[in-house]
Amino acid sequence: MTRILVCYHSRTGTTERMAREIAQGMRESGADVDLLSVEQVDTDALTEYQGIVLGSPTYYGLPSAELKALIDESVKHHGKLEWKVGGAFTSSANPAGGNETTVMAILESLLVHGMIVKGDPRDDHYGPVVIGEADEEDLKRCRDYGRRIAELTQGVEKWISKK
Amino acid sequence: MTRILVCYHSRTGTTERMAREIAQGMRESGADVDLLSVEQVDTDALTEYQGIVLGSPTYYGLPSAELKALIDESVKHHGKLEWKVGGAFTSSANPAGGNETTVMAILESLLVHGMIVKGDPRDDHYGPVVIGEADEEDLKRCRDYGRRIAELTQGVEKWISKK
Amino acid sequence: MTRILVCYHSRTGTTERMAREIAQGMRESGADVDLLSVEQVDTDALTEYQGIVLGSPTYYGLPSAELKALIDESVKHHGKLEWKVGGAFTSSANPAGGNETTVMAILESLLVHGMIVKGDPRDDHYGPVVIGEADEEDLKRCRDYGRRIAELTQGVEKWISKK
Amino acid sequence: MTRILVCYHSRTGTTERMAREIAQGMRESGADVDLLSVEQVDTDALTEYQGIVLGSPTYYGLPSAELKALIDESVKHHGKLEWKVGGAFTSSANPAGGNETTVMAILESLLVHGMIVKGDPRDDHYGPVVIGEADEEDLKRCRDYGRRIAELTQGVEKWISKK
Repeated sequence: MTRILVCYHSRTGTTERMAREIAQGMRESGADVDLLSVEQVDTDALTEYQGIVLGSPTYYGLPSAELKALIDESVKHHGKLEWKVGGAFTSSANPAGGNETTVMAILESLLVHGMIVKGDPRDDHYGPVVIGEADEEDLKRCRDYGRRIAELTQGVEKWISKK
Repeated sequence: MTRILVCYHSRTGTTERMAREIAQGMRESGADVDLLSVEQVDTDALTEYQGIVLGSPTYYGLPSAELKALIDESVKHHGKLEWKVGGAFTSSANPAGGNETTVMAILESLLVHGMIVKGDPRDDHYGPVVIGEADEEDLKRCRDYGRRIAELTQGVEKWISKK
Repeated sequence: MTRILVCYHSRTGTTERMAREIAQGMRESGADVDLLSVEQVDTDALTEYQGIVLGSPTYYGLPSAELKALIDESVKHHGKLEWKVGGAFTSSANPAGGNETTVMAILESLLVHGMIVKGDPRDDHYGPVVIGEADEEDLKRCRDYGRRIAELTQGVEKWISKK
Repeated sequence: MTRILVCYHSRTGTTERMAREIAQGMRESGADVDLLSVEQVDTDALTEYQGIVLGSPTYYGLPSAELKALIDESVKHHGKLEWKVGGAFTSSANPAGGNETTVMAILESLLVHGMIVKGDPRDDHYGPVVIGEADEEDLKRCRDYGRRIAELTQGVEKWISKK
């Protein structure tokens, strides 16, 4: 069974709520998901997942220091996360308030690990974004995203495991 | 009198409308503004402005090829635009639909020219963005932006001219 | 057989040389590669490839207007390139001269299409970069990149075709 | 006298060495510079500077968590840093190893504060970058950068203080 980590940092609860919906979409697609706040993640366990999706509030157009600390610590596994699937999401106060640069910053760090990421031709192109309070449509977008990332992770894993 | 170019590429008219409001705000601050579509700009005249602000629709998370062609042609003045003030704006269909990466892409090209750019601590942090149709609040944000950029350009010019 | 397009814009020949080596690496991995300059590409044919890799010189920290025009035209297939594999490369005059922002800009446009991209934990994290003239080590990095992208494209295709 | 903060996070010493040279260039231009490691900075004092320049090693294509923590804490002064001059620098192991995205990430956070930043038409367009060990030419580029940022800060301050 494909194992995916959805890790979030959340202060007001919006990013956590997004994480729950993403995890829900993944589970509906048959993935085994660990939904953990950034404080709960054991960096030694990162290599056990086939997919890693990271979420943060938008703080100054970038992920929070708390999430960045996890990314910095992951250097101990540098090279071992290659070919895994990654993803990113964020919550923000304003449109054009730094949400895209936050998602892209997280994706850049995953690319440095050699991970595989995927965009979306529909709406939130780089990864799910919620502006202000999450409404029903936002949460549906998160679940849809979870399903697509789970599907990609399962597909990549099937092929990687046969290499 | 401080001369500023507001240059836009627009297909549906939204980016042009933003450009008009930005130019309006600049004129209210006492600047002499040329408001030109990308086809109207004479690249040889770029060095005559103390400020250059560029706008484009969001096409695949980046400025349009038409605006990029102007930026590429500006290489003939490479080095001569240093210390001038720059800015960027965009219109887009969706929030999280590539608007921030478009504005940042334009700002990056202005930084390569050695230009001076300024963010905004209020709302559209990197430069004005309109999602969908422009409403009154959007247009006010554009005028406010025009005023601030005109003010910065005048201040920088006053100091540069005394160097 | 997996079909991949390597499309480049090149003025001095360096980006073209990179493209040749990337295509060579892909062919060694068993892919059927079309190596085309940006003028030669028929945008109607984009949907026939399982992988699309785009290269450009670094012009003002972004891909050239010529390459951007191809990306803008690809809107006619918007949604149909989802789940395809993408990649990006660039040549540049200086380190820290805009090469990373160029590669990331191309990757952003591919993500807007919903495509799948992969980073590299070794050296050029976002995609191959050559500074100045290409040397033997540069060309080897390009071939290695071609092999990895071909491998990913073949893996994703195998799985997609069974969905 | 114009006061500028040069704040760095450094593990191996290269970013610190860059910071020293930048500060040196600023002092040669007549600025009063505080050269402080990220642990030494009192965030309450940030408003006292007319210029703030931040440096970090390149960790996963972004500034380190330690530097990001300082940026996150600066939210207590949100709005009060507008119109100040900012800058960014980084040290990195490889060219195309995430250095540009690190500098741009720091600049993005400064733009969210409403700060003023400037590029360079010569070499390191977005801010000074050292790849590997710093050599004499690298250090000269850092001093030149310090001089230009000091000059800009003094010019902006002169004008702001008369507003």
